[in-house]
Amino acid sequence: MTDTRQTPLAQSLPASVPFVGPETHERQRGAPFVARLGANENLFGPSPKAIAAMAASAAEIWKYGDAESHELRHALADLHGIAPDHIMVGEGIDGLLGYLVRLYVGAGDAVVTSLGAYPTFNYHVAGYGGVLHSVPYRDDHEDLSALMAKAHEVGAKLVYFANPDNPMGSWHRGADIVAALDNLPQGCLLVLDEAYVECAPEGTAAPVEITDPRVIRMRTLSKAYGMAGARVGYALGAAEVIAGFHKVRNHFGMNRCAQIGATEAIKDQEWLAHIQREIDIARQDIARIARENGLEPLPSATNFVAIDCGQDGEFAKAVLAHLVAAGIFVRMPFAAPQNRCIRVSCGPEAERAAFAAALPEALAAAKSAI
Amino acid sequence: MTDTRQTPLAQSLPASVPFVGPETHERQRGAPFVARLGANENLFGPSPKAIAAMAASAAEIWKYGDAESHELRHALADLHGIAPDHIMVGEGIDGLLGYLVRLYVGAGDAVVTSLGAYPTFNYHVAGYGGVLHSVPYRDDHEDLSALMAKAHEVGAKLVYFANPDNPMGSWHRGADIVAALDNLPQGCLLVLDEAYVECAPEGTAAPVEITDPRVIRMRTLSKAYGMAGARVGYALGAAEVIAGFHKVRNHFGMNRCAQIGATEAIKDQEWLAHIQREIDIARQDIARIARENGLEPLPSATNFVAIDCGQDGEFAKAVLAHLVAAGIFVRMPFAAPQNRCIRVSCGPEAERAAFAAALPEALAAAKSAI
Repeated sequence: MTDTRQTPLAQSLPASVPFVGPETHERQRGAPFVARLGANENLFGPSPKAIAAMAASAAEIWKYGDAESHELRHALADLHGIAPDHIMVGEGIDGLLGYLVRLYVGAGDAVVTSLGAYPTFNYHVAGYGGVLHSVPYRDDHEDLSALMAKAHEVGAKLVYFANPDNPMGSWHRGADIVAALDNLPQGCLLVLDEAYVECAPEGTAAPVEITDPRVIRMRTLSKAYGMAGARVGYALGAAEVIAGFHKVRNHFGMNRCAQIGATEAIKDQEWLAHIQREIDIARQDIARIARENGLEPLPSATNFVAIDCGQDGEFAKAVLAHLVAAGIFVRMPFAAPQNRCIRVSCGPEAERAAFAAALPEALAAAKSAI
Repeated sequence: MTDTRQTPLAQSLPASVPFVGPETHERQRGAPFVARLGANENLFGPSPKAIAAMAASAAEIWKYGDAESHELRHALADLHGIAPDHIMVGEGIDGLLGYLVRLYVGAGDAVVTSLGAYPTFNYHVAGYGGVLHSVPYRDDHEDLSALMAKAHEVGAKLVYFANPDNPMGSWHRGADIVAALDNLPQGCLLVLDEAYVECAPEGTAAPVEITDPRVIRMRTLSKAYGMAGARVGYALGAAEVIAGFHKVRNHFGMNRCAQIGATEAIKDQEWLAHIQREIDIARQDIARIARENGLEPLPSATNFVAIDCGQDGEFAKAVLAHLVAAGIFVRMPFAAPQNRCIRVSCGPEAERAAFAAALPEALAAAKSAI
């Protein structure tokens, strides 16, 4: 039942859930998962220094967080070698995307993304009355030139492009993205989601001039830094683009312990390097498990591996359902043809072994149902 | 410089800061505050069980929080003796107010509040293009019947009413608020901000029927529960009003450790009772300090005391400036005539003593400047 006092736009929106969380699944199945490998969380966890700082600051939680995220923003400025006014810290990339869409997208405004790319971005676009146009993936990659062409065609305000990509794990060279900026329509902003970039090969991060107003880059502490539950993301961009957030953001929205932990995590680049190695080992191991089951792992520049189950979306869905029933939480892409895959997050050996143990039976069950 | 690609509404908004945070002041003055008594934080802190739970869960921060805040919502349902679908957990009352305004207020829609009441609510209204109408306080109380009359006059979508009030600390009987609902215009929603209600006398919480769609109540873990930095608030209301949040909220926006800590805090009602006693002692002590300096403390049902400095806003501002310079962080109301006061948060004896020590000189300095 919709409250008819809501705005016409709000009344038109469905109550929606971009993702069903693992806890919801666990409550439905009445048991915890054996391996939590579905939400692209980083099971290796954050820097021990970040954990210690958060634990030590718990007693200080009576204080609001710093509305300017000063310490964290300065640690990020040091890391990137830029001035702090090119950085906005927010409540995860999800939160920042919400603010960004609100700033740029009014009712009827066109926005371009890839068919099957990040649903939470689409949720924000719909939520502000924007009109979403999508282009298909090409060979399991987001298709940068098709996105640009579509942006021209529809007069887009925003183009969303994730590099590396979620849910496929594919990637483009950063230099190619910078080159493509020249094809961005006048008046359009490229939203470059680099959530997974720390998991990617050298050269994947787009070498964008920090003063370039054509693009805003999104980064997060949720993936390689292992702090998904903290809700800390940040945007990098030209000062006049970053300044826009001050018009709409929730100034005291950051959790204080999260700010403190994130600052320590950013300073501990040695731990990040350790995690990058662990992720690489896990990717290779997940790929091996896939191949041993006759499946094709896709190359990945992220902390997950998309595994081509070799048939259509219905088949992959059946495999996934059997895995979930066996206590292995994985997810899968939403749209065809990417939905021939399941998507498995990187985790330690025990979780990978649990996945390896459950996969043959899940495959057999899915096949027998055909 | 405004980015001209923004929506017309966004371009029209100023970059604004409802409150300057204490850390910003500290950076400006180059030294930490001696007593942090300005942000209505609860210096006594949260339940030790909440602190322990947050510290213990820090290592688990690699997991996203539960999108449904299931455990916390059920603890709140138990506390209030209602079903969980009458409760929405969000990123502090600030976050929930943002969602609520977004759901109900479109460009040009009228909203009613009190002149000098919560600025963050006003920020959200302006941010969504709403038109704010305000009525003066009456005898340092929000004027419920004037608010209702104004709502009729302007055809308001929302009326904001805080009980107890911030910044004055005054309060109405809950039963009077329920009675006033009959004067609420058709199609208007009363936003009843009860952030401080746990600090108030018995009978202050409005005994609203939980199925009554005319009102939504806002509660928080930031005040009596001592967890301002966690960003946990919740709304109580009719199921169809609560359901609206699912259309626009950031589903994975809650910090996981905050969810865990808040659940423990809600379960520890014994600690809350202890804090209520501490706050009462602190209020009496702050009142005594005020009187010993020839100032008039206002009665308070909150975790702060507004102190009438006996002259106009300029004088109170001078007193405040001298206190801040002496390392005592306090704030003051924004609007006349409330701005004849300074507002002092409740804290332990040491902080009260620091305030008591600094006040005479601050008063003398302010008087000598006249």
